[in-house]
Amino acid sequence: MSGISARRVVLAGRPSGWPTLDDFRLERFTLPPVPAGGLVLRTRYLSLDPYMRMRMDEHSAYAGSVGLGEPMHGQAVAEVLRSEHPGYAEGDTVLAPTGWASHAVSDGTGLRKLDPSPAPVTTSLGVLGMPGFTAYSGLMVIGVPKPGETVVVASASGPVGSVVGQLAKIAGCRAVGIAGGPDKCRYAREELGFDAVVDHRAPDFAEQLAAACPDGVDVYFENVGGPVWQAVLPLFNKFARVPLCGLIAQYNEAGDRLADGDLAETMRVVLTKNMTLRGFFNTEFAEDHYAEFLRVVSGGVVDGRIKYREDVTVGLERAPEAFLRMLRGQNFGKVLVKVGD
Amino acid sequence: MSGISARRVVLAGRPSGWPTLDDFRLERFTLPPVPAGGLVLRTRYLSLDPYMRMRMDEHSAYAGSVGLGEPMHGQAVAEVLRSEHPGYAEGDTVLAPTGWASHAVSDGTGLRKLDPSPAPVTTSLGVLGMPGFTAYSGLMVIGVPKPGETVVVASASGPVGSVVGQLAKIAGCRAVGIAGGPDKCRYAREELGFDAVVDHRAPDFAEQLAAACPDGVDVYFENVGGPVWQAVLPLFNKFARVPLCGLIAQYNEAGDRLADGDLAETMRVVLTKNMTLRGFFNTEFAEDHYAEFLRVVSGGVVDGRIKYREDVTVGLERAPEAFLRMLRGQNFGKVLVKVGD
Repeated sequence: MSGISARRVVLAGRPSGWPTLDDFRLERFTLPPVPAGGLVLRTRYLSLDPYMRMRMDEHSAYAGSVGLGEPMHGQAVAEVLRSEHPGYAEGDTVLAPTGWASHAVSDGTGLRKLDPSPAPVTTSLGVLGMPGFTAYSGLMVIGVPKPGETVVVASASGPVGSVVGQLAKIAGCRAVGIAGGPDKCRYAREELGFDAVVDHRAPDFAEQLAAACPDGVDVYFENVGGPVWQAVLPLFNKFARVPLCGLIAQYNEAGDRLADGDLAETMRVVLTKNMTLRGFFNTEFAEDHYAEFLRVVSGGVVDGRIKYREDVTVGLERAPEAFLRMLRGQNFGKVLVKVGD
Repeated sequence: MSGISARRVVLAGRPSGWPTLDDFRLERFTLPPVPAGGLVLRTRYLSLDPYMRMRMDEHSAYAGSVGLGEPMHGQAVAEVLRSEHPGYAEGDTVLAPTGWASHAVSDGTGLRKLDPSPAPVTTSLGVLGMPGFTAYSGLMVIGVPKPGETVVVASASGPVGSVVGQLAKIAGCRAVGIAGGPDKCRYAREELGFDAVVDHRAPDFAEQLAAACPDGVDVYFENVGGPVWQAVLPLFNKFARVPLCGLIAQYNEAGDRLADGDLAETMRVVLTKNMTLRGFFNTEFAEDHYAEFLRVVSGGVVDGRIKYREDVTVGLERAPEAFLRMLRGQNFGKVLVKVGD
C-alpha cells in the first residue's frame, strides 16, 4: 500500500495580491513509508478556509507559511485505510491535517476520531469544527453578548458568520448580518433567523446598515475588514467589543488599497467609546471552551436550532478553483472539496 | 463675599487644528449667589490636562464640550472661603471642579476634602489624582503586566507615563519610556528608573525603540498615537495589550495628517498577534480600583519609590499659554497653574 499513487495540490507560485490558478499545481506523488505505529489515510472531504490565503505568503503571520512546491495545508475528513496505531482501526473516520492531498501517512499527530452520529462527519470541518469554534469562542468569550444588545457579523451565510448570528439570537440579542447578494441575504434572514441582513453590494450599504442597527452596535464580530469596518465604525456604542478573527477583504490587496482606511479615526473611536478590539485565533480558547462549544452547538444542530449549509466541489483537482471562488465571496456556505479517489 | 470680583478664562473661539491664545479670553466676573448649604471656593492650583483639548471641539466625545464664551472646564485644589455645607469648614482644602477660574461657588457636588498629609495637596491633581489613576487602572487592569515582560509608554516624564513606568518596574517588568529631548530622557532614566528611554525626536527613533525592546513589547500604554504607534507596531509580541487612554498627537491635526496611519496594517497586527486594544477613561474603573490605587501609589510616594515632578506656571492669566505649551510637549512634569488671587 505504500505504493499508492496519490495526488496533491502544491503551491506553485507566491501571489502578489489575488492568487490565480497558476499559483497551484496538481501533481502525482508516491506516499512515503508509514512510520512505525502509524496510519495511512484516504481524504474524503477537504476543508477550504480563508486563513489558507495568508499561508501562501512568504512571511505568514499564521503559524508557518507553505513552502514553494510544498502541498497546501488543510484539515480533512479522512478514512483510515491501514493502521498500526492503537487508537485507530481500518475504516475509522478521522479529522486529519492531510493538506490538499488524496492520501496521507500519519504518526497520529493531530488526528481526532469522528463519531458519525449525531451529525454528518463533514460538520467537523464547519459548524462543529474550527469555523464553528471560531464563532463560538469569539462571540461568547470576547464578545460576551447580553440580552437586548446588537451583534453584527459579515459573511452571514458562511460557516463562521452563520454560527455567530444564530448564537447571538440564542443569547437574546438582535442579530444583524451582512452578506453579498439577494440569495445569501434571504437565506440568512429566513433560514438562519437574523433580524436583519444588509447586502454589502448595495450602493447605500452604510446607510442600510445604520438603519438595521437603530440602537447602535455592541458587538461586531470582525472577519472581513475593509469597507465593512468603515461602515460599522460610526455605529459603535460605549463599551463595544470587537472579536477580530479575520480580514479576508484585505488578504489580497497590496499597497495603496491597504492604506485606504483612516487609522486615526479608528483609534479615536476605540478611545472615546471605551471599546475592546481583540485579535484571536480559536486555538487559544480550546482548552477552556472547546468542550462547552461542542455541547452547546452540537445540541443546537441536533435539535435544529442551529442550521448550517455546505458548498461542496467534487474533485481534488478543482480545489484551487473552489478556493479562489471562496476568496471572492462566491461560495454559499462552508466550502468543502469532496475528494474523488 | 458674593460681591467678589473674580477672574476666569473662557473659550473665545473653536480651534481648527492647533489652538492659539486667541481661542481663550480672560475676563472678570461676579460670583453668582451661593446656593443654600453651599460653599465659596478660592482656587489655589488649577490642573491642565490633554483631555481639555477635546472639550474645545463642538462635538466632543468626552462628556460635554465647552460652550463658546463659557469657562474652560478643569479640576483644582481650592480653599474653602465660606461654607454652609455640613461637610466642609472655612479653611478646608478641597479638590473641586472649579474650571479655569479664580473663585467658584459650589453646592458640594464633585468636591473631595484633601488631607494635607501625607503628600502635598497638589499631588491630588497628578500622581495621586486623575493622571495617576489613569496610569494605574490602564496598566494594572487592562495591561496586567507580568514579571519579565516589556512595558512601553510615551510621555515618560509626564504625570501618566511616569507612573506607568514606575509601576511597571515595581511589577518586575522592563520599562521603556519615550520622551522628547535629552533632559526628559535623562530624568526618566535616572530619576524614575526606566530601563531605557528613547527620544522621539531622534531621526532613527524607530530603530532606537526596537533596540530598547530586544524581547519585543508586551504592554504598550498608548497616550499619544501618531508616529509613536507606528514605531511600536512592528514590536508587539503575541497577546500584547494596549490600554489606550489618549491620542494627544492627533488632537490637533485635521484632514490629511489624520489619514497618515495605515489602518490595514494595524488591524493585521492586532489579528495576527492576538492583541487586545482597549480604549478607556479612568472613571470606569474607579468603583473597583480607586481605593487600591490610592493605597499602592500613595504608599510609593511616601516611601520614595514613586517619584513625580510638577511644572507650575504662576497666574491664572497664563493658563492658556501653559496649556499650549503642554499640547506641544514643552512641559516637564504635571502641568499646574498656581492661581495668584
